Amino acid sequence: MKNFTSAKDVTDLAGLVQLARDIKADPFKFRDAGKEKTMVLLFFNPSLRTRLSTEKAALNLGMQVISMNADQGWTLEFEEGAIMNAGSAEHVKEAAAVVSQYADIIGIRTFPGLKDREKDYSEQVIEAFKKYASAPIISLESATRHPLQSLADVLTIEEFKKKDRPKVVVSWAPHVRALPQAVPNSFVEWMKIANVDLVVTNPEGYELADEFMDGVQLEYDQQKAFAGADFIYAKNWSSYREYGQILSQDETWRITQDKMVNWANNAYFMHCLPVRRNVVVEDAVLDGPNSIVIKQANNRTWAAQAVVKRVLEGL
Amino acid sequence: MKNFTSAKDVTDLAGLVQLARDIKADPFKFRDAGKEKTMVLLFFNPSLRTRLSTEKAALNLGMQVISMNADQGWTLEFEEGAIMNAGSAEHVKEAAAVVSQYADIIGIRTFPGLKDREKDYSEQVIEAFKKYASAPIISLESATRHPLQSLADVLTIEEFKKKDRPKVVVSWAPHVRALPQAVPNSFVEWMKIANVDLVVTNPEGYELADEFMDGVQLEYDQQKAFAGADFIYAKNWSSYREYGQILSQDETWRITQDKMVNWANNAYFMHCLPVRRNVVVEDAVLDGPNSIVIKQANNRTWAAQAVVKRVLEGL
Amino acid sequence: MKNFTSAKDVTDLAGLVQLARDIKADPFKFRDAGKEKTMVLLFFNPSLRTRLSTEKAALNLGMQVISMNADQGWTLEFEEGAIMNAGSAEHVKEAAAVVSQYADIIGIRTFPGLKDREKDYSEQVIEAFKKYASAPIISLESATRHPLQSLADVLTIEEFKKKDRPKVVVSWAPHVRALPQAVPNSFVEWMKIANVDLVVTNPEGYELADEFMDGVQLEYDQQKAFAGADFIYAKNWSSYREYGQILSQDETWRITQDKMVNWANNAYFMHCLPVRRNVVVEDAVLDGPNSIVIKQANNRTWAAQAVVKRVLEGL
Repeated sequence: MKNFTSAKDVTDLAGLVQLARDIKADPFKFRDAGKEKTMVLLFFNPSLRTRLSTEKAALNLGMQVISMNADQGWTLEFEEGAIMNAGSAEHVKEAAAVVSQYADIIGIRTFPGLKDREKDYSEQVIEAFKKYASAPIISLESATRHPLQSLADVLTIEEFKKKDRPKVVVSWAPHVRALPQAVPNSFVEWMKIANVDLVVTNPEGYELADEFMDGVQLEYDQQKAFAGADFIYAKNWSSYREYGQILSQDETWRITQDKMVNWANNAYFMHCLPVRRNVVVEDAVLDGPNSIVIKQANNRTWAAQAVVKRVLEGL
Repeated sequence: MKNFTSAKDVTDLAGLVQLARDIKADPFKFRDAGKEKTMVLLFFNPSLRTRLSTEKAALNLGMQVISMNADQGWTLEFEEGAIMNAGSAEHVKEAAAVVSQYADIIGIRTFPGLKDREKDYSEQVIEAFKKYASAPIISLESATRHPLQSLADVLTIEEFKKKDRPKVVVSWAPHVRALPQAVPNSFVEWMKIANVDLVVTNPEGYELADEFMDGVQLEYDQQKAFAGADFIYAKNWSSYREYGQILSQDETWRITQDKMVNWANNAYFMHCLPVRRNVVVEDAVLDGPNSIVIKQANNRTWAAQAVVKRVLEGL
Repeated sequence: MKNFTSAKDVTDLAGLVQLARDIKADPFKFRDAGKEKTMVLLFFNPSLRTRLSTEKAALNLGMQVISMNADQGWTLEFEEGAIMNAGSAEHVKEAAAVVSQYADIIGIRTFPGLKDREKDYSEQVIEAFKKYASAPIISLESATRHPLQSLADVLTIEEFKKKDRPKVVVSWAPHVRALPQAVPNSFVEWMKIANVDLVVTNPEGYELADEFMDGVQLEYDQQKAFAGADFIYAKNWSSYREYGQILSQDETWRITQDKMVNWANNAYFMHCLPVRRNVVVEDAVLDGPNSIVIKQANNRTWAAQAVVKRVLEGL
C-alpha cells in the first residue's frame, strides 16, 4: 500500500481485516517490521485516540515515532505561484518534500474549516502532501474522511456480527456543535466495500455528499431505518447541503434504549467517540451490555497497526 | 502495586526505597521489565521535572512511552447522568476506559483549581480515572498530593541522614502566587510512615488539612520548630482554611543562612523545585554546601522508576 | 566534543563532515553509540526541521529522546542575586542543573527577542545552560547562531562543489517579517573555516556583526557579488545596526532565475527553509534543477547525527 487516505487505497479489505485480527491476537508478532524506520505524525488539529493508537501501533512494529503538533505557527501555502508575502511561512511543496526525508511514513491529521465546502472536499492538505511528499501518507483523519476509524469499525462489526450480512444503520444524532462529516462519510465509504446491508438515516438537510451516498439507501424516518438493525452507528454531523450549518438539534433523534430495544434488533451500539452523553445517546445505551464503543476504540490500535504494516511492506 | 496515588498505596516503604536505591546504582538493571508495555502520560497541567523523570524512568525500564498534553481542548465531564450539552466533549467513563486500552500504565497530572476546596480534595480527576480505568494509575501530582515527589524526598533523607531518626521540619515560606498544598500534604503523609521526627511550622491560617496533620506536631514559631533540625524542607502553600488564599507574604518566614546555621542543627536544605530565590529562600542557602535540592531532584528518576517497576510487577 | 553551540566548538571540521557522510551512507552504523543514554530537547521557541532531524539523529544512534516545548509557563531567571518575586518561577541555575540529571545531552532552541541587541548577542540562554549544566549542550538554534544548520550547509557544499575552492555568496533577500541574523551569522562563521571563497552581499544597513564579518568580503552590489558564484545562499535577516528593524523590502534583491543564469556561474541555490516563494526567491529558481534546498534539508539529519555522535564520544 502506498498511501492510506481512503477506502480506495485498499485492494483487499478481507486480508487487511484479517491482518488486524492477527495483530490483535499477537500485538508484537511483527515487532521488527518497522525496525530502523521512522514515522512522523503531524497534527494540524488536536487528536487523542488517533494519536495514542497510531503511536502505539508504530511502536509495536518497532518504528521510531516522532509526533508534532503543527497547529501553531506553521501555516502552509497551497497555491501554485503564490507570492508569499502574507501569513504563510512555507509552501507545502517544501514542507512535504522535507518531512519526507525525515520520515519513512508520514501521518497527517487535519480538519475541515466547515466554511468553504469546495475547499474542504478538495482535501487540500492531504492531497498536497500526497502530491509533494516522497514518503507514504497515512490519514489520521482529514477534512472528509477518517479511514483509520473506519477500518476499526469494519473490524469491530466483523468481530460482533451474528449473521453473514448484518444490517448496519448510520444514524444522525443531535449535538451542540457543528461537526465534520468525515466520520460518517468514511464509514459509509467502507461499509460499501464490506459485506453489510447499509442504511443511512438523518433529518432532511443532513444528506451526506453524493460521492459517498451514491448507491446507499437513505431513510429519513429513523424508526423505519432501525427496523431489524444489527448495528446502530450513531454520529452527529453538520449539514453538507447548507455547508457546516447546524440545521437541527432535534432531541427526538437521540439514540435511546427504547429505540435500541423496540425499534432495532437488539442491536449493538457503535460510536467513534468522544460522545456527548444524553445528547447524542442516552446513558442507558452507553452503559448497557450492547454498547461496544470501548471495544471499538480498542480496535483503533489494531487497525492502525495493520495499515502501518501494509505501508511498511510497500516501502 | 495496583495504583500509585498516595502513601496509602505503599505497603512496604523500606522495600520500595531500597528498590529505588538499587536502580540508582544500576539504572538499566531492569531494562526489560517493561518490554512490550506502553505508558501513557496525560498532562492536564504542565510539568517539567515530573515529565522528564517519569518518561526517563519508563524508558529505562524498556517501556514505550507516549506523553500527551491534555490541557487544551479535552475537557472531561465527571458527573454521573450529566446532559453533556455544554463545554465537556467526553465523559471520564469513556476517556479512562479508552486510554486504558492503549496503555498498560496511565500517568496523570492534574492541579487543584484552588477555588472549591471540597472539589479539589475529592481528587475528582484521579479518583475518576481510578474508578473507570482498567489500567493502573500513577499520579504525576494531583490536586492534593505529589507522591512521586514524596518518595524521592524519602529517598533523599535516607541517603543524607546522619542519625537513625532525624528531625525533619516542613516550613512554610513566602511566595507571590497562590500555590497548591499538594507537596506539603504529600510530604507529611510520607514522613508519617518514615522513621523521622516531623514538625510542621507555618503562620496561623496556613494549617494543612486535618487528614494530613492528624498526629503531626504543628509549631507556629519557626525558630522553635527549627531547633535541632536535621532537614529543613521549605515550601510555600496557599491557605487551606481560607481556601486558596494568600494570607501572608511575611518575609520573616524566608529561609535564611542565619536560620540554617543558628537555629537549625547545620541542617540540610530541601525543596521540591522550582524555587523562587530570595523570596522562599536566600541565595546563600541554595548555593551553600548543605543545599541538597539538586540531588533531591535527581532522585525523582529513581523514585519514579521504582514505582513503575512495582506497578509493572502487578500487571 | 563537550558542547556544540558554534563553529568554535569544532576542532576538526573535515573529520566531522566525513563522519556525517559516513552516517548518511549508513544511518544505523552507530546504532548502539547512544545506548542507555537520554537526550532531552528543550524548545523555548518552535521548531520543525530541527526537531525532526535531531530527534531522528538521536534515535538512529540508539538514544532515548524526550522533547519538551518549554515555551509556555517556564520563564527562567538569569540574573545573579535576583529577588524572584515577579514573572520568573525558576532560576537557570536550578533548571540547568536539574535537567542535566535527566539528560546525558541537552539540546536547546531559543530565539533572539530582536529588541535588545546586547542581550541577544550575549546568548543569555545558551551561555547560562553551558555554565550551569553538567550535561553537554547542543544548540538547536540560538539567538545568534544555528550551527546544526551550518554544518548541514557545509556538508551540502562539499557534496555539490565542482571545484576544490568554490565561490559561495550569501545574499540578503527581502521578507515581510523581521528575522534573526542567526542563520547568516552562523553560515559565515562556518564558511570561514571551510575551503571556500566567501562573499556576503546585502543592502547598506544590513551588515552583519563585526565578530562574524571580520575578514569576510562584503559587497553591496548584488550583481558584482554573484559574478562567478558556484553557490548562492539566500536568506533574509533584520538589521543588526538598527537592531531588529526592517530597513528595506526591496524587491530588486529577490533571487531570480535571470540572476542565477546571467549573473552567477550556473550556481546552485541554497536556503535553510522555510522560504517564502516569490518574495525571497522566484518559483523558477526553487523549482529548477539547480535548487538544492531539499537535499540541504536532508543533510540536517546527518549533520545532527554526526554532532550527537561526537558529543556521545566525549561523555
